[in-house]
Amino acid sequence: MKLTVRKIYENPAKFADSTVVLSGWVRNHRDQKEFGFINLNDGSFFETIQVVYERDKTEDFEQVTKLTVGSAIEVVGTLELTPDRNQPFEIKATKVTLLGGADETYPIQPKRHTREFLREVAHLRPRTNLFSAVFRVRSIAAFGIHKFFQERNFVYVNTPLITANDGEGAGEMFKVTTLNLDKLPRLENGEIDYSKDFFGKQANLTVTGQLEGEAYAMAFRDIYTFGPTFRAENSNTTTHASEFWMIEPEIAFADLEDDMQLIEEMVKYVVKYVLDSAPEEMAFFDKFVQPGLLKKLNDLLTSKFNRVTHKEAIDLLINSGVKFENKPAHGRDLAKEHEKFLTETYFKSPVFVTNWPKDIKAFYMRLNDDNETVAAVDLLVPGSGELVGGSQREERLDVLLSRMKEMNVPIADLDWYLDLRRYGGCKHAGFGLGFERFLIYITGVENIRDVIPFPRTPKNILF
Amino acid sequence: MKLTVRKIYENPAKFADSTVVLSGWVRNHRDQKEFGFINLNDGSFFETIQVVYERDKTEDFEQVTKLTVGSAIEVVGTLELTPDRNQPFEIKATKVTLLGGADETYPIQPKRHTREFLREVAHLRPRTNLFSAVFRVRSIAAFGIHKFFQERNFVYVNTPLITANDGEGAGEMFKVTTLNLDKLPRLENGEIDYSKDFFGKQANLTVTGQLEGEAYAMAFRDIYTFGPTFRAENSNTTTHASEFWMIEPEIAFADLEDDMQLIEEMVKYVVKYVLDSAPEEMAFFDKFVQPGLLKKLNDLLTSKFNRVTHKEAIDLLINSGVKFENKPAHGRDLAKEHEKFLTETYFKSPVFVTNWPKDIKAFYMRLNDDNETVAAVDLLVPGSGELVGGSQREERLDVLLSRMKEMNVPIADLDWYLDLRRYGGCKHAGFGLGFERFLIYITGVENIRDVIPFPRTPKNILF
Repeated sequence: MKLTVRKIYENPAKFADSTVVLSGWVRNHRDQKEFGFINLNDGSFFETIQVVYERDKTEDFEQVTKLTVGSAIEVVGTLELTPDRNQPFEIKATKVTLLGGADETYPIQPKRHTREFLREVAHLRPRTNLFSAVFRVRSIAAFGIHKFFQERNFVYVNTPLITANDGEGAGEMFKVTTLNLDKLPRLENGEIDYSKDFFGKQANLTVTGQLEGEAYAMAFRDIYTFGPTFRAENSNTTTHASEFWMIEPEIAFADLEDDMQLIEEMVKYVVKYVLDSAPEEMAFFDKFVQPGLLKKLNDLLTSKFNRVTHKEAIDLLINSGVKFENKPAHGRDLAKEHEKFLTETYFKSPVFVTNWPKDIKAFYMRLNDDNETVAAVDLLVPGSGELVGGSQREERLDVLLSRMKEMNVPIADLDWYLDLRRYGGCKHAGFGLGFERFLIYITGVENIRDVIPFPRTPKNILF
Repeated sequence: MKLTVRKIYENPAKFADSTVVLSGWVRNHRDQKEFGFINLNDGSFFETIQVVYERDKTEDFEQVTKLTVGSAIEVVGTLELTPDRNQPFEIKATKVTLLGGADETYPIQPKRHTREFLREVAHLRPRTNLFSAVFRVRSIAAFGIHKFFQERNFVYVNTPLITANDGEGAGEMFKVTTLNLDKLPRLENGEIDYSKDFFGKQANLTVTGQLEGEAYAMAFRDIYTFGPTFRAENSNTTTHASEFWMIEPEIAFADLEDDMQLIEEMVKYVVKYVLDSAPEEMAFFDKFVQPGLLKKLNDLLTSKFNRVTHKEAIDLLINSGVKFENKPAHGRDLAKEHEKFLTETYFKSPVFVTNWPKDIKAFYMRLNDDNETVAAVDLLVPGSGELVGGSQREERLDVLLSRMKEMNVPIADLDWYLDLRRYGGCKHAGFGLGFERFLIYITGVENIRDVIPFPRTPKNILF
């Protein structure tokens, strides 16, 4: 195994006074005539390592003084512990070799860049402190999610991306085709002949893996998906992307209460896993991105999530005396400002809002005995609003059928989904967590375009 | 936490003579007049648990005798150790409650079904032994892959699915659009006006995340992708699907030798992880799907992968005396029968074939000094042929540019990719592993349609 900056930071004493060889990139370079300092980052660790070179001690000194920011180099030198200085150790270089240069056109110079500019160079932005932190945390959070579910014996299911379903009976979808758009095949009546298309019928990119996930929960009991989903909505907000990753667990022999327990455990587990695994990155966010972030997350770990029904929440809002722009009303959805009031002013904690009016929720959510509400839950968190949406699923075939008819859901296309109620059906529940929303919450970075490596939004498909 | 069949199998003695409550599905039912046996599977574990009910000891005995295969039930009873019998324990039921029935139309009866039939009920097939084993192993293998890379500090990168690139300059792609195909907007010259499309230009589903992965390797050093990729090829074989999952690691400051080391370590790690984590499933495959599977995999763990250049491999084939249908020739690709000879007859082990003729490989592979071959590698394994394809990447801007021109790769679209050579470029390498091919190798199940939950192939988009 090659030596990396991370390995040195893990145990600098082990390498003290030995010769080390490192490869990496020049993050910063200060040339002081008779000597100089290079901050080397090799991608393995958030922090850089300081390389000192000197006229008398470093080969090809003059060449080294010319190294530019962004260049790839190899450094041979001695690791010296410097407990009295700002950085706890440095490398006294005997040799520094240029592997690949970067001229003055290199866009990532050591100065402040706007996030808008950095989106235009999304292939280079992970070389900055901010995006190095964001995307390592993304990786760690993803693994934390897998780890949580695998430790609990959940089966990971890869549900299909290309589908003929219109999952939730809502949400604009992207069409997928191999037809030659300049010579569309036509039926006699002039309609497009999709039997000639790749799949023999109209196909779309999925908006959810939930329905297929339910099929697997009816076999494996506890399952989760973690994969991309798509929305073709023409909305330019900081929380919407056309392509994003979702986690959708589904649990059998379980009700809404079990669902909420699972949500709470998962959120806390992953937050803790990230805090433990990426302390340097999290400290950076706390200092430079969202002051108070660490307190927010640590508070989350120790707080019991509150619970309130939708009706109670609306009453709270109405009786709050606050003048909301959107008037809270029974039977209606919560606006951002309502979520903010509930989590930040009233409860000062994450809060589960349960039992939503059936008319504003999806067909598959279990109808409560009041015939007015469904066993749905949204988890609202301070700072980000809705983080998770879940529900107990309607397991009663007759009730499900009548809800589908009511809501004009195409029944024939979903006959296989009804089989899950015909054959060995049982109470079950699940939820969806938008991975990028979770990352926004964890990192404090506000824009979804900045937590996904190459974001896709309307009119934007760079790289 | 609720009790599951897995928890009982983990430590039956702990539950001996205590009352247990389990929920699950009836896999089999033998009614013997005064008593009966139910094989209960709750999805948490491959094996079933035997439930015994008796006229005198079980509530609503007559109802219980009528329980049908596929039904969801709850069982209350006493766990009794039965060390002298076939099964090491059973549950003496005091109460069995029907949660959801399954009538005689239930397609998964306890008899042998063809795999073709089971594909038509892909939403129910994970309830069979075979697919329960396949899809738990899929989940475990996926986690093993994440674990391998995360333990080595690789950063997991989610590369985009919708793209304007034509990744490898090869491979048919699916178009993605929101245009109304019945009213396509046109430019004055009659061409379709893609500026009106969702992304403002023509978009496709990606065939690889490698190029974007390289951008991240130039920041994080070691990265991997693990996500869906797409091929719109109209080929109906047992190893091709239109939608499948790929693992694409990319390592900086690394050459082909490092790449091969990584491939070998990863393959062995994941195979071992699956063998350790799913012993019941793997024993099932060995017994019923591919006799000799466990020996094949254990041999893999202890064998050093062989290495041979493409030229040497062709020479071996020519001098073998074997009459191949496809005549082996220098400069040409290897046919399936050649791969089989090399891995099963000649080397009797996995083998890396390196240094391929440049004309049959992709533009981004590093040109060797002979100007004829590239630093590419395929890993061939006994029984499955090509499992992994990798290469050292061309890091020299001028060489890369001339290869792109030679192979008609659109240079302007990939200018950002060239930046990775302009700014801090360094030697680097990577590979691609088709997840489903790996699963075919690990499980012995021969058809890609049977290792992906809801397979997409030409004219097939069920569920």
